[in-house]
Parts: sequence; C-alpha cells; structure tokens
Amino acid sequence: MRNLLLVISYDGTTYNGFQTQPGNNTIQDKLEAAICRLTGERVRVSGSGRTDAGVHAKGQTVSFFTNARIPAENWPFALNSLLPGDIVVKHAKEVAHDFDARRSAKRKTYRYSILVSRYPNVFARGQVLHHPRPLAPEKMEKALEALRGEHDFTSFCSIKTKVNSHIRTIYDTNLVVEHDPLAGEDARLIHIYMTGNGFLYNMVRIIVGTLLEIGEGKKQVADMERILAAKDRQQAGPTAPAHGLMLWSVEYC
Amino acid sequence: MRNLLLVISYDGTTYNGFQTQPGNNTIQDKLEAAICRLTGERVRVSGSGRTDAGVHAKGQTVSFFTNARIPAENWPFALNSLLPGDIVVKHAKEVAHDFDARRSAKRKTYRYSILVSRYPNVFARGQVLHHPRPLAPEKMEKALEALRGEHDFTSFCSIKTKVNSHIRTIYDTNLVVEHDPLAGEDARLIHIYMTGNGFLYNMVRIIVGTLLEIGEGKKQVADMERILAAKDRQQAGPTAPAHGLMLWSVEYC
Repeated sequence: MRNLLLVISYDGTTYNGFQTQPGNNTIQDKLEAAICRLTGERVRVSGSGRTDAGVHAKGQTVSFFTNARIPAENWPFALNSLLPGDIVVKHAKEVAHDFDARRSAKRKTYRYSILVSRYPNVFARGQVLHHPRPLAPEKMEKALEALRGEHDFTSFCSIKTKVNSHIRTIYDTNLVVEHDPLAGEDARLIHIYMTGNGFLYNMVRIIVGTLLEIGEGKKQVADMERILAAKDRQQAGPTAPAHGLMLWSVEYC
Repeated sequence: MRNLLLVISYDGTTYNGFQTQPGNNTIQDKLEAAICRLTGERVRVSGSGRTDAGVHAKGQTVSFFTNARIPAENWPFALNSLLPGDIVVKHAKEVAHDFDARRSAKRKTYRYSILVSRYPNVFARGQVLHHPRPLAPEKMEKALEALRGEHDFTSFCSIKTKVNSHIRTIYDTNLVVEHDPLAGEDARLIHIYMTGNGFLYNMVRIIVGTLLEIGEGKKQVADMERILAAKDRQQAGPTAPAHGLMLWSVEYC
C-alpha cells in the first residue's frame, strides 16, 4: 500500500466544485473515476480543500492510498490520458503513510483576478472578474495588507460556516497589476494573492468583495481594520463571484 | 445611410469560422443576427477576411451600411448585450461610403501561440498549441525573418487556394518568448507575429508548421529560403492546428 500525492490543475467552469456530490460532475469524481480506470481500485482521494463551483486551481493537491505498482512519475501521463481536457495532473510523488493532503497542509495561496477594462477579454471570461469601472489598486493593496497576521476572520466568513474557530493567519498578501493586451490598451489585470494557514468558507471571495468596494471608493482603506475588528459579516462587502478565484498552490513544509 | 466599422474580438472555439454558412454557427451569422435585433435591418457585413473554424480574433474588423440613427459610440454596448459572451464588439466608428473592411485593409497582423511545457495549461487549451517537446525559438525566429519582404508564397499556401497571385508582402515578423506561470515553472509561451499586406489560405498555419519542424531540428534554418524558392507546398511543413491562431489586428492607413 502506497500513499500518493498528486498536484492537479483544473478549469472549474463546468464543474460543481471539487468535492464529490450526486451527479458526479465534480473534480473529485472525475479524478476517482480516472484512477479506477487506471488501477481498477475504488479509491477515495483527500483534497487539500474544497473549491466551490466555478473556482479554478493551478496547484490543488490530493492524496490517496493505492496498491498499484505504477511508478510515481508515470501517474500524470497515465491519468491525463483518462481525464477530461480541463483537468490535468502535473506532478505525482510517493509520500509517508501519515501524510494527508488536507491535514498536512501548512500554507495555501489563493489568487483572485480582476480585469478593469471597458470590454471583457473573451479568452479569459471564465477566469477573471470583469470590472468595467475604474478601481484604485493602491488603496486595495493597502487594505489587503491590513489583513496580514493572526486574526478572527468572522467578518469575512460565510454565515453558513460550521467550524469552531474563525481564527486564521494570513502570512502574506500581494497585489500585482498587469497589462492585458487581449482586452485593450487601457485594460489592467489586477491579481490579488493571499497566503495563509487556512481560509474559512468564502473568506477570499468576501475579502475581495470588500476590496472592490474600497477600490471603487464606496469604502475607505481604514475601514478594513474596523470591519475585521467588528467580527460581523454584515460589515464586509459582498461575496465576489467564484470564477475570478483560483487555488494557486498548497505547501507542506 | 451610414457606413459603420466595428472592431470585434472572439473566441472561435465553438464556431464554424467567420464566414456565414448553413447552420448559422459562424461569427458573421451571430453578428448579423445581433444587428438585426438591434435595428430591424437585415444587413450583410463585410469582414476584413475569413477566419477558419477554431481560429480566434483580438481585432477582426467588419463594415456594413445601416439606416439606424444610433450614435457610433453606443453600438458596442448595444450589440454586446445581444451577442454571445465569446464575441465582443470593442469599437465602432462611422467611415466613408467607399470604405470596405476587406478591400480597404492595408496591413493585417496574425499571432500564433505555442506552449512548450510538459503539461498543458488548462486555462488556455483552446488558444495555444501545446507542444510537449523542446523547441529552439532562436532558430525559429531566424527562419521567420527570412520570410520578410515580397515573395511568391506558393509553398506556404493550401493547394485549395483559388486566387490568381500568390505574391504577398510580409512587412514585419516578431517572435516573443514569455513565461507561463499557469503551465509550470519550465513552461515557455512562444508568440509568433506576422504582419503583411495579405495572407493566402492557411499561409500563417503552414509557415508555423514549418517553423515547428525547424524548432524541433527536423529542418534547418537555411531550409526556409529553399522552401520559399521552391514554390511547392510539398516542401513546407504541415498545417499547424487552427486553435493556436489569432487575427491580431487590421490596419487601414
């Protein structure tokens, strides 16, 4: 029995999220079906975390136990030949028996992408939030930095969350502005990166929804600390749409 | 009666090319249907040129005559609300009555994109050719430069072409190598740009197919001039797939 770790990338546009559910139209279902076709085994994979419907991943991780003797380095090509084109296994390695993709994760990074332009970029319409009005990225960046450190993130957490603690640590944040030639000469692509020890349900999307209000001038930079301290979901902005969000990477040491 | 010029961008993945055909699943059909819904007029648009099934456009141009009194600057938003999400009108302006998007075009630029990486980028799988083996971009660039100037491009032209002259002028070429973080740390995105006074049927794709053979070492840089001089389609490489190709821009002066 071996424990395998896979790094996978997917375009979440047409799936009902990562986690298995009736109908089998999830990333987990597609992955388990491909593993079953390859090995004959009905495994249950453990993902580093769920991603919602429409959310993407550059570097999602999963682990699972297998009796198959296929060398680790052969798994990506073997599984990719059995997976739909919008799910790709990029790496596989054998890990210790006590490793679990979710429980062993030390840091996760998410990226949220916003296109500020008059017209959308037809080639990225499923991967970036199109925002046709001006934004002030320097204000958004300052407000984002105010979230670094250990905090109670109740204000940025869906009221549907059932976890005991709302305390999480954000280790790093970054806001990068790029030119997007496909969307036009005036187009600016804003990538918001957040690295933390874990994220509550909808936390990144509610933070981004709040940053959008700050970028539009509906809220001020200083409001971010006030909202954080309030521990009240009502104080924060709306939940930004799923399709701008991407699980960027998961780190284990 | 006014003559209008539109600049449009489209993801060609799901369409049977630009030019109208039975079934109405073309860019031209969708555009004419949107104009009809907006104005009640059954117009025929003139495109700067056809793009094949699966080929994309950043800046395709069309012109057409209309009696509608809608100001030019209002056309993009009005049409975009009636068009599918993968077709976007980015600009509209009134032009002289003797202007025609095809006949008046002075220069056209195409871009062909190749991703050199072990695994594909799931987010660009419809827009770049995935090439999992190494390429030598500096050799491809040199061979590409050999095509600049006025030449008989018979070797790089589908035998199905029915035009009288195979002489075209390539004004400029460019090869740009970019990093692609979504595809992996080793991933390199090669963009090939060609600007000319016109392109023969499949010309860009056959040139790219030949450049790929040179980049792989199957052909030499010096072969490009020999192939051009041969005026024989058999001497060139295969036609590269449609989905890596994008009509980048059309210039009128």
